[in-house]
Amino acid sequence: MYRNLDASDRVDADGLVTVGSPVSYWSVRASKQVTYEVRVSDDLLDPANNAILESMSAATPLRRLVVTDTTVHRLYGDRIRRYFHHHDVDFRLLVLPHGESHKTMDAVLAVVEALDEFGVDRRREPMIGIGGGVLLDIVGLAASLYRRALPYVRIPTTLIGLVDAGVGAKTGVNHNGHKNRLGTYYPAERTLLDRTFLRTLDRRHVSNGLAEILKIGLIKDARLFELLATHGRHLLATRLQPMTHRDGEPVPPLDTVPVSARLSRQDPDPDPATDVLERAIHGMLEELQPNLWEQVLERVVDYGHTFSPTIEMRALPELLHGEAVAIDMALTTVLATRRGLVSRAQCDRILATMTALGLPIWHPLCTAPVLAHALQDTVRHRDGQQRLPLPVGIGAAVFVNDVREDEIAASAAELANRQQLAVAR
Amino acid sequence: MYRNLDASDRVDADGLVTVGSPVSYWSVRASKQVTYEVRVSDDLLDPANNAILESMSAATPLRRLVVTDTTVHRLYGDRIRRYFHHHDVDFRLLVLPHGESHKTMDAVLAVVEALDEFGVDRRREPMIGIGGGVLLDIVGLAASLYRRALPYVRIPTTLIGLVDAGVGAKTGVNHNGHKNRLGTYYPAERTLLDRTFLRTLDRRHVSNGLAEILKIGLIKDARLFELLATHGRHLLATRLQPMTHRDGEPVPPLDTVPVSARLSRQDPDPDPATDVLERAIHGMLEELQPNLWEQVLERVVDYGHTFSPTIEMRALPELLHGEAVAIDMALTTVLATRRGLVSRAQCDRILATMTALGLPIWHPLCTAPVLAHALQDTVRHRDGQQRLPLPVGIGAAVFVNDVREDEIAASAAELANRQQLAVAR
Repeated sequence: MYRNLDASDRVDADGLVTVGSPVSYWSVRASKQVTYEVRVSDDLLDPANNAILESMSAATPLRRLVVTDTTVHRLYGDRIRRYFHHHDVDFRLLVLPHGESHKTMDAVLAVVEALDEFGVDRRREPMIGIGGGVLLDIVGLAASLYRRALPYVRIPTTLIGLVDAGVGAKTGVNHNGHKNRLGTYYPAERTLLDRTFLRTLDRRHVSNGLAEILKIGLIKDARLFELLATHGRHLLATRLQPMTHRDGEPVPPLDTVPVSARLSRQDPDPDPATDVLERAIHGMLEELQPNLWEQVLERVVDYGHTFSPTIEMRALPELLHGEAVAIDMALTTVLATRRGLVSRAQCDRILATMTALGLPIWHPLCTAPVLAHALQDTVRHRDGQQRLPLPVGIGAAVFVNDVREDEIAASAAELANRQQLAVAR
Repeated sequence: MYRNLDASDRVDADGLVTVGSPVSYWSVRASKQVTYEVRVSDDLLDPANNAILESMSAATPLRRLVVTDTTVHRLYGDRIRRYFHHHDVDFRLLVLPHGESHKTMDAVLAVVEALDEFGVDRRREPMIGIGGGVLLDIVGLAASLYRRALPYVRIPTTLIGLVDAGVGAKTGVNHNGHKNRLGTYYPAERTLLDRTFLRTLDRRHVSNGLAEILKIGLIKDARLFELLATHGRHLLATRLQPMTHRDGEPVPPLDTVPVSARLSRQDPDPDPATDVLERAIHGMLEELQPNLWEQVLERVVDYGHTFSPTIEMRALPELLHGEAVAIDMALTTVLATRRGLVSRAQCDRILATMTALGLPIWHPLCTAPVLAHALQDTVRHRDGQQRLPLPVGIGAAVFVNDVREDEIAASAAELANRQQLAVAR
């Protein structure tokens, strides 16, 4: 397990190496196992549902700090309180301001102060976050930092939370005008996915989540893209709630049908919303698991995330995260089309699907200097190279390092024209 | 690699498990390998010494953000600048205020702003921290958070940095009146140990570091304790610089003698300072390596760290970290003596050694209520149990969970008396 440099080296019983002349050093090697669970469970706030209170380590009486945001509190505050009261949990509910503009270190420190005030045991009293991607990222970072790691449970209430922020390992806040400039890799011990929260989600935030689902379809799952292209408007209108069966029978709720059967390409779920959700989450986790700490910087799930961090931050609070990602995907789809990686017909279909999903394909911030600056910051983030994922047809991707400013500008101009034509029509 | 719950489960090619009815979930498992190096190299700021600029990943031209504190800057600022100029490095030097009171999230954010301003590639332009334990903890936390992890190099300039803060994996800042309330586990890719920095260290800060060395001696290395008991005053007076040989010949510098030979108990280094430093670092790393993320909360290196976090923070800025640790060790040594774990003679010898090392054994804050409160917070930190390491004789330890407030108070009172007698004498 340890490096040996020359004959005078000595490895002791614990395997620690001390190396001899001419330079003395110790080489420390350690390995960390991380396990986490992403569980589907409908109607989590039903007092009969125990999922929220199950934990890897159980201390009684149950004590929990619960963190949510103003929007979720307005919609679900009473049910949250009733749930914890019903289960005799000694809990405190902290309500943070809603929205990307509040994704700051100050919000993290507000959670820390609530933890100090409430008092929690370091390992067996997990914090619970209930909210959208922003709230979950803040709670995750606070959990990661508090006493150098407190376990936590994530309950996403938005579509983007369900398919993206909720299922990965990243935590973070914006800082100094930069998207997610500060953060850690620290997954929740458990994420609980409850689609019924989407009933209260406004249409624009459904589109926001559909952007990240579309991303998975475009770069690795043609079948997922087909589902979105075919059912896009309907998914948006129904907020991905279970549809009725073809024969008119109600579809059983998500957690009573084996996922395994539904994921097989030969046997799709009769309910496209369920199929879409599960394919998106599964596809995301397939990419994350082998690269949880981003040791490999070529990540297909970074598709749509090259120009969007800068666009999103500069447009704040105008654009939602998924909207900025959609603008980036539209730009790079056109760029890939200009390079012959995507056919004109495919390009038209992708952009039409975006529109059907309620997503923008262009923004006035897509000027040559802003896009050049955005690429520059992303290159630093990808350690000096572009490592830019581009779609190859639909459902596959390639990484390139030679994207030029002129083709970015030309692609943006093409989209600006398309946008003008669409508005004129 | 993945959990299988029932016959309907399906493991796909990547090993991701999707589990069937009645509850659907994904189980994500990943493993992270961490390697870091603790290297001994004298006179790091000599332009002929390349150690500071060697990195796991090399980008040219070399660019480095260097962070130090006001004290180190006053003593070494010119040499640091000359070093980087000599090597044609594009560098920026950030100087943070010195001292435990400045170990705050604000200091971390100051480093972050400097990183943003200077601009660094995410993986191949490591940040360099040059300073004491406080500075290294701040730089480590900033590195850990920036873009979710930037590599960094630690150069301790104090004794406590050389044997404790510099060689482990912990980063952190104080917050809300609590010691190291926020932090991460994120070792520097390399720590460079240069004993010549101690030449400019004041005597009190030498004592400060000797406290952590004494800790290792007391709980796991009787030979190390003997060295301190025998040579304590001399080590303090000479600031652990190499002494002359028994025959009057100068001792070769630290980095030309194989560590392996020196660490063998049968063949101690003729220079007790070298022997002391290497035993302390080796002992510390032996404890850290198998438990780098503190998955086991029973840590012998937590000896002296049960009551001291509260005492240190309440006394701020009066007590240095090692002084608070010494007060805690004196208290728990007396407590262990009252329990018959340590003999009266051993207790006297331990306390006398502390005094010889310039360390306090008592403080007016050692009142029953403060100590009770301190234990309470530490119990939360150790997940609901005391897990309090107590010395067994000299060189071994045991964990206990049944320490009572009355014996803590009695031990503190005994030390208060001893202190009074010593002052009167």
